[in-house]
Amino acid sequence: MYVDLNCDMGESFGNYQLGNDEEMMKLISSANIACGYHAGDPHVMRKSVQLAKEYGVSIGSHPGFPDMMGFGRRYMTCTAEEIRDYIIYQTGALREFAKAYKLDLDHCKPHGALYMMAMSDEKIAQAILEGLAMISEKLVIFALNGSAVAWMGQKMGIPVALEVFADREHTENGSIVLTRTGPTFTNPQEMADRVVRMVKEGKVRTPDGKDANVKADTICIHGDTPGAVEITRAIHAAFKNEGIEIRSVKKSWQIS
Amino acid sequence: MYVDLNCDMGESFGNYQLGNDEEMMKLISSANIACGYHAGDPHVMRKSVQLAKEYGVSIGSHPGFPDMMGFGRRYMTCTAEEIRDYIIYQTGALREFAKAYKLDLDHCKPHGALYMMAMSDEKIAQAILEGLAMISEKLVIFALNGSAVAWMGQKMGIPVALEVFADREHTENGSIVLTRTGPTFTNPQEMADRVVRMVKEGKVRTPDGKDANVKADTICIHGDTPGAVEITRAIHAAFKNEGIEIRSVKKSWQIS
Amino acid sequence: MYVDLNCDMGESFGNYQLGNDEEMMKLISSANIACGYHAGDPHVMRKSVQLAKEYGVSIGSHPGFPDMMGFGRRYMTCTAEEIRDYIIYQTGALREFAKAYKLDLDHCKPHGALYMMAMSDEKIAQAILEGLAMISEKLVIFALNGSAVAWMGQKMGIPVALEVFADREHTENGSIVLTRTGPTFTNPQEMADRVVRMVKEGKVRTPDGKDANVKADTICIHGDTPGAVEITRAIHAAFKNEGIEIRSVKKSWQIS
Amino acid sequence: MYVDLNCDMGESFGNYQLGNDEEMMKLISSANIACGYHAGDPHVMRKSVQLAKEYGVSIGSHPGFPDMMGFGRRYMTCTAEEIRDYIIYQTGALREFAKAYKLDLDHCKPHGALYMMAMSDEKIAQAILEGLAMISEKLVIFALNGSAVAWMGQKMGIPVALEVFADREHTENGSIVLTRTGPTFTNPQEMADRVVRMVKEGKVRTPDGKDANVKADTICIHGDTPGAVEITRAIHAAFKNEGIEIRSVKKSWQIS
Repeated sequence: MYVDLNCDMGESFGNYQLGNDEEMMKLISSANIACGYHAGDPHVMRKSVQLAKEYGVSIGSHPGFPDMMGFGRRYMTCTAEEIRDYIIYQTGALREFAKAYKLDLDHCKPHGALYMMAMSDEKIAQAILEGLAMISEKLVIFALNGSAVAWMGQKMGIPVALEVFADREHTENGSIVLTRTGPTFTNPQEMADRVVRMVKEGKVRTPDGKDANVKADTICIHGDTPGAVEITRAIHAAFKNEGIEIRSVKKSWQIS
Repeated sequence: MYVDLNCDMGESFGNYQLGNDEEMMKLISSANIACGYHAGDPHVMRKSVQLAKEYGVSIGSHPGFPDMMGFGRRYMTCTAEEIRDYIIYQTGALREFAKAYKLDLDHCKPHGALYMMAMSDEKIAQAILEGLAMISEKLVIFALNGSAVAWMGQKMGIPVALEVFADREHTENGSIVLTRTGPTFTNPQEMADRVVRMVKEGKVRTPDGKDANVKADTICIHGDTPGAVEITRAIHAAFKNEGIEIRSVKKSWQIS
Repeated sequence: MYVDLNCDMGESFGNYQLGNDEEMMKLISSANIACGYHAGDPHVMRKSVQLAKEYGVSIGSHPGFPDMMGFGRRYMTCTAEEIRDYIIYQTGALREFAKAYKLDLDHCKPHGALYMMAMSDEKIAQAILEGLAMISEKLVIFALNGSAVAWMGQKMGIPVALEVFADREHTENGSIVLTRTGPTFTNPQEMADRVVRMVKEGKVRTPDGKDANVKADTICIHGDTPGAVEITRAIHAAFKNEGIEIRSVKKSWQIS
Repeated sequence: MYVDLNCDMGESFGNYQLGNDEEMMKLISSANIACGYHAGDPHVMRKSVQLAKEYGVSIGSHPGFPDMMGFGRRYMTCTAEEIRDYIIYQTGALREFAKAYKLDLDHCKPHGALYMMAMSDEKIAQAILEGLAMISEKLVIFALNGSAVAWMGQKMGIPVALEVFADREHTENGSIVLTRTGPTFTNPQEMADRVVRMVKEGKVRTPDGKDANVKADTICIHGDTPGAVEITRAIHAAFKNEGIEIRSVKKSWQIS
C-alpha cells in the first residue's frame, strides 16, 4: 500500500521567508513549487528545485493568480484564456529550473483561489486542463474527488491524482472547508490516525460528525500549518506501523 | 549571401499596446519576445508565439530586469545569481508557449539595461551565459561584437550571433550609442543602404564620420522606432537588389 | 443650468501611453486620476496634476484594484478592510501630488471592477465610504443613482455626485451596461443630444427602447472611447446651444 | 540630554511577516514606515500607524525603490525626476493613513539603496530634497553627517536630523559600512555603551580601531537585527543611567 505526500513549497519571496522547506522536503514525496505569481521568485524557485533534487522529491508547478499582495487567495474574474496562459507561463518558468538540474516536472497543483475556483467552475477547470494538455501529456493534475478539475481531467484523458488534506476539514461530499478558525483537530497523533483512515478506509470524519467517502492518491500537508514538521513525522510513524509507503504519484503510476 | 533580421516583440502589456507586431512579424526572421519582466504578459506572449508560427519566424527570449515601470531600461545592481535565475525563469516561461505550439526557442537576446550592462560587465555576461548553458546547448545568444557576452560566450562554446543595429548609431569599437536625441539618420533609404554596407562590407559610419568595422550575423530593427515598418520594407528592397537573403541564424547555422 | 464633465486620466504607465490626456483636459471640468494600482505611476500622476492645474480642472482620485495586468477590470474578492486601505493609500498618494502644486483633491471615483462591485455590494460600498470619511469631509464621491455607494453615502452624510455616462448604455433602473460590443450609438452629434437630454430632462433611452430616469450631477466620457475628443467637442457645442455650463461639482456645490 | 531613537517599521507584506514591530514600537521615539514600494502594503501601513499612535511614536515615511523582489536594496539608475516623484507618492500614501488617525508625518528616511545612493550622489540627494520641499516645510530628513543629503538639505533650509547606527559599523568619515558578515559587535551591553558614547562624546570606534567623529540627532536600530529588542532594551537601561532621554526629533525641535 502506498500514497503520495505533497506540500506547497518555495513560497518565500525576496527578503521574506515562509515555511520550513528544508525540513518538509525530507518528509514528502511531491513538492508543489510556487512560480512567482502568488509567491516565490526565480531565486527561491531554483533553490526549491535544488532541494527537491537533493531529497529525491517529485516536482510539480503550483501556479496561482497574479496577486502577490493577496498571496493568490483572492478570487479574480480572469478569463479562461488568461488562466490557461497563466498556467503555461508559470509551469514553463518552473520547468526550466527543473531542466537546469536535469529534472522534469511531474505534476501541477493550482494554488489557493485558483484551486478553489476550479473545483466548481467548469470554465476555469477546463482552462487549466487545456493549458496542461497543450504542454504535456504526462503532467498529473492534483484535484479533489468530485471537483470539476477531477472529472473533466479524467474525461480529457489527463492523469488526475485525487487529493485529500491532512490539515483541513472535509465536507460530506469530499470538498474541503476553509475556515478562519482552522480545523478542529491539532493533535499530531490524531491527525496521523485521521490520514491513515483516509488512505486505508477511504473515509474521513466531517466537522459535523458524519463519515465522508474520500479517495487519496495524494495527501496534502501545508508547510505553514503550525507544527507541520511534527505532524508529518507523526504521519510517517503511523504509515510505518500500517505498512503504507510514501511514494510519488509519478513513481506509483510509472508515468515517464 | 544571407543575414538574420531581428525585432523585439511582444512588448505590449495588459491593456497597453506597443509596437506593430503583426506588420513587423511579416518582415523579419527572428523575433525576440518579451517575457513578462520588463514588458509582456502571458497573453501577449502566447499571441506573439502564434504570430511567429504563422509567419515562420524564429523565436527567442527577450529577458529583462524585473522593472515594468522602467521598461527594463534602468540599471539594477542585481547579483550574478539573481540575473542567471531571471534568465532561466523568463526563457522557460516563453519556451513553454513555444512548446504549446510545437515549436522551440532558437535564441536569447537580453533587453535594455541588461543588454547594456552585459556588454562590459563580465560578471553579468557570465551570469547570462551560465544560465543559458544550464538549460540548452542550442540557444544562440545575440551580442555586439567585442562585448563581454560575445567573447565570453565564444570561449564557453555557446553559439554567439553578432548583432548590428539598423536604427542605432555605432561607435568606432562597434558598440552602440544610446542617445536621447536618437540617431542622426531617419531616412528609410539611407538606413537601408547603411544596413547593406554593414552586411556586405562589414563597415558602418560613426556619428563623428569615421568608419567602424562591424560584423553582422543579425540586424536589429526596433518595432517602436518611428517608421519601423517602412524602414524594414526599404531594407527588404535593398537586400533584394543586392541578392542578400533574410534568414534566421538558426536556419543559417543549421542548429537543431 | 450646469453640469460637471469628468474623464478618467493618467492611465498611462511607464513606457506605455493611453488616452489623449492633454486634449481631453481642455474639455472637462473634473479629472479622475489613476493612482498607480490599476494604471498610472508617480511620474504620470505628477504630469496629470500639472495638466489639470494648467487647465483649471478639478482633481479626484481614481483608485482601483492592485491589478495592473488586468487594468483593474477584474473582480477581486478583497476584504472590506483591504479595500478601505487601498482607497486611503491611492487617494493619499495622489493628494500629495496635488499638494506639491498647491491644490487639493475634490472627489473620488473608484475605477473599473471596484466601481462595478461597489454598485451592488454594500460591504464594498461601505468600505470605500468609510475610507473616504476617515480622511476628509469634503471629498465628493461619484456614483450611479440607485447604487449602494450613492444611497449609503447620502445616509452617511458624504457628498455624492450622481453620474451618468456619455459613452455607455444605461439600463431602465439607471445602472450601466458593459458590453463587449460597446454601445449602439457612436455618432458624436447623437451622443451630444443624448447627454443634453439626460441633463435637461433626466431621461435616457435604454438599449431596448425604453426611457430610464437618470440624474446627472456629473457626466463621464472615457478618454479611450474612439473619437473621445470629437464627441466631447460635440457635447460642448450642444451645451452652448442649450445654455448648459460645464462646471465642476466642487465649484457648483461650493465645497471648501 | 536627549536623542531620538528610530526604527524601520511596517516592512511586512501581504502574507509575509518581517520584524517585531509591536515590541520595537514600545521602545522607540520615531518609526520609519515602509510605503509599499520596497516593502509594506496599505494594510500593513495602517496597522503601523495605529501602533505608532498607540505608543506615541513619531511617524516618518520610509520610501524606497520600486523593487519588492530586491527589498529596495538594489541600486537603480532612476532619473532625478522619477526619484522625486517616488518620494512624493510614497510619502503621500503614508500621510493619508496618518491623517486617518488624526496624525501627521514628522520625518522622512529613504530606504536601502536609495539612502545609500543619496549619500554621495548629489543629483539623487537633490531630487529627494526637492520632493520633500514641494510637499512640506516641516518634514525632517534623516541623513548621515557628511552625506550629500545632509549638507544639501541644510543649504536648502530643510531640517536635517543627523543619524548614527546602533547596529552598523561607521567609517572614519562618519559613513556606514554595509558588510555581508555584519558588524563585529553583537553584545547588547557593548552596543548600548557604544551608542552612549556616540551621543555623549560624539565619537565611535571604527572597524580598524580608530575614533570617528559622529553627530547623533537620531539613532537607528533595525528591527530585523538579531536580538533587536534586547539591544534596544540595553540602550534604554544605559540611557537611564546616563540621564539621556529618548525623544523624537520633532518634539526636541518643536517643529509644528
